[in-house]
Amino acid sequence: MDPKTDLKEQIHGLGRRARAASHEIARASTRQKDDALLAIAQEIDDAATGILAANATDMAAAAGLDSALKDRLELTAARVATMAGGLREVAALTDPVGEITDLRYRPSGIQVGRMRVPLGVVGIIYESRPNVTADAAALCLKAGNAAILRGGSEAIRSNQAIAACIRQGLERAGLPTEAVQILESTDRDAVGYLVAMPEYVDVIVPRGGKGLIERISREARVPVIKHLDGVCHVYIDDRADFDKAQRIAINAKCQRYGTCNTMETLLVAEAVAVPMLKLLGPLYRERGVEIRACPKTMAHTPGAKLATAEDWGAEYLAPILAVRVVAGLDEAIEHIRAYGSQHTDSIVTEDLSRARRFLREVDSSSVMVNASTRFADGFEYGLGAEIGISTDKFHARGPVGLEGLTSQKYVVLGDGHCRE
Amino acid sequence: MDPKTDLKEQIHGLGRRARAASHEIARASTRQKDDALLAIAQEIDDAATGILAANATDMAAAAGLDSALKDRLELTAARVATMAGGLREVAALTDPVGEITDLRYRPSGIQVGRMRVPLGVVGIIYESRPNVTADAAALCLKAGNAAILRGGSEAIRSNQAIAACIRQGLERAGLPTEAVQILESTDRDAVGYLVAMPEYVDVIVPRGGKGLIERISREARVPVIKHLDGVCHVYIDDRADFDKAQRIAINAKCQRYGTCNTMETLLVAEAVAVPMLKLLGPLYRERGVEIRACPKTMAHTPGAKLATAEDWGAEYLAPILAVRVVAGLDEAIEHIRAYGSQHTDSIVTEDLSRARRFLREVDSSSVMVNASTRFADGFEYGLGAEIGISTDKFHARGPVGLEGLTSQKYVVLGDGHCRE
Repeated sequence: MDPKTDLKEQIHGLGRRARAASHEIARASTRQKDDALLAIAQEIDDAATGILAANATDMAAAAGLDSALKDRLELTAARVATMAGGLREVAALTDPVGEITDLRYRPSGIQVGRMRVPLGVVGIIYESRPNVTADAAALCLKAGNAAILRGGSEAIRSNQAIAACIRQGLERAGLPTEAVQILESTDRDAVGYLVAMPEYVDVIVPRGGKGLIERISREARVPVIKHLDGVCHVYIDDRADFDKAQRIAINAKCQRYGTCNTMETLLVAEAVAVPMLKLLGPLYRERGVEIRACPKTMAHTPGAKLATAEDWGAEYLAPILAVRVVAGLDEAIEHIRAYGSQHTDSIVTEDLSRARRFLREVDSSSVMVNASTRFADGFEYGLGAEIGISTDKFHARGPVGLEGLTSQKYVVLGDGHCRE
Repeated sequence: MDPKTDLKEQIHGLGRRARAASHEIARASTRQKDDALLAIAQEIDDAATGILAANATDMAAAAGLDSALKDRLELTAARVATMAGGLREVAALTDPVGEITDLRYRPSGIQVGRMRVPLGVVGIIYESRPNVTADAAALCLKAGNAAILRGGSEAIRSNQAIAACIRQGLERAGLPTEAVQILESTDRDAVGYLVAMPEYVDVIVPRGGKGLIERISREARVPVIKHLDGVCHVYIDDRADFDKAQRIAINAKCQRYGTCNTMETLLVAEAVAVPMLKLLGPLYRERGVEIRACPKTMAHTPGAKLATAEDWGAEYLAPILAVRVVAGLDEAIEHIRAYGSQHTDSIVTEDLSRARRFLREVDSSSVMVNASTRFADGFEYGLGAEIGISTDKFHARGPVGLEGLTSQKYVVLGDGHCRE
């Protein structure tokens, strides 16, 4: 057989088995799903040595790769324990499946409500980090879905070792092992087949760099929950409390540089620009943050570089910050609309009307008042865990937890009711 | 200029204007939006004669088309009045935009909640029925969205007359007229461009035949809220109340033949098949419903035809009904899974455990107990109006009203809070 036809058939086989297993997971009891999650956690704890050995082989093979990638790939005893802990946390979350809300009597006499239901089969495509294998499997299972996981080829041995634990845990709980399958082919076309079989896969969640996500969005024939850039803004209004503004401006940029909810551009209202920039400039300097400034900012920020057009809208993921002086709220909202990525934006102000306008008019997945953009996170929001942060507006927006992995159907209860 | 380049540029121009208008509609007050809806209703009432004249021209040009299409295309004074009434009903609905739910304090001290927000720009692609122009515009506006409407070429003059009323109503309410635009090109490629510009369009809602919807799903580069087949089932359990079963089986099939929530296949539990079929057979016969029967059904249904493989899964939209005897609930669920379209399915039973299983395990957008499938409808469910019925699981499922035309973003309120 043509090897490509063979690969396609292999991926379709995964899909068929996932679809069949999804029906069993959808009707599994909460107890059964939690038992499976706890059993998988136990298997991971017990197999820690083996998982670390597999990871060491992956690391040896990855010797030539860059250090950021190697950091993401590497597992330690602590990271393996965190993985098992994550599974136990998901087991402790409330089961979303089957929840009925808004059940109300209608004039016709029927009761109509909505029941939360699994999406079906979720495909996760990710790079390097082997812990995603356990995290993603846990969230999918708890939400009643089957999962097909496609990790990076550099993590294949680590992922296989974790997958073996998942399989054993599912088996111990009496659930079908096909509920979580690993796509092992390292052929690039495998992903293309996976994202183009709507008969077997209900949604794709890509977790990785922009290149991966753009490729998947282009090729997908099923819905994609995607996360593109995180170009987050803090706007310091002229009615801001200076102390709060200072704390938030430093925390949003400097608490961690490489995360998607890190501030990349600071906007300052003209009326407070001079004192604010004189206050913040030295604080950024002593933390080694390079400032890319608009001309007005330049005048009050010694050592800043003049920003170019590319700086507005840049996701640095590094100790670099674009700073721009704006006339006020309107110009701040316009700037965010023009250059932001609809991820997370925050206003610092004591003025209630302006806070209300910012919350309503800034069209981002998280909008904040007097809080650091770094809070945009599933754990901080109380979702328990997240499978990613969606910058789409459709279906799920912002941190995606169990609810984003489910849908709702209508339930109608009658007593022989007919339509007139 | 190449005419195709020109058409593409024209559609992109529509998109750019819609995107700009969407920001204004998103922040419009409830009062402004309702004023616009009421003004449009008034304009339609006032322009009724002109709308009917435009429709008469469309009808004359459509003389050669089939009668079902002509019925959908035709406007009468009553239909125009209903259109205006629909706008007033949407004005009376609660504004979903800006609603904040689940605002809770987190351990960090921030408050986190979710705010309902417009999707942005909605593209509606529909056939023949000119009333969709007014209905769809009303729902999109109320949900804070801009709309691009692409009706059938056979209804172009009717749609233009209605669009003029919409424009005047928007103008009177001080809202941008580009909030609702009509795509007037009858070039088939225009639709292709419309569904492939994610920078300007956030979601596409196709309303029409299966061919249209399949084409759009194939070509779309933005999310599609789609409605494929309505292959709806009623399962009469052996613990059914005969009187309820009879009423529902007749109502679900015969109340209207051409709707997507009409029953197309009746499943009967073997233990009650003989009395049930003897009861129902004559009732269907006197209503002129042709029965396509499984072999077991044949034996007790005089005049039935033997069903072929194509009958299971057929959407007749006609006085034809497939009937199959099943062993019990398990086989009924299996049959629905194999042949249904995940639209609407109902069980008739007095047994609570079986009702619970059916509700949980049948994976359709509406699942019912002791009620006619004909209830699957936005008005009956209390949504006020619907833009369509979604057979997707992603984002919106079942009748789609104002909520399906919105998303939710996270709002975070702090008092200078930073992440530790």
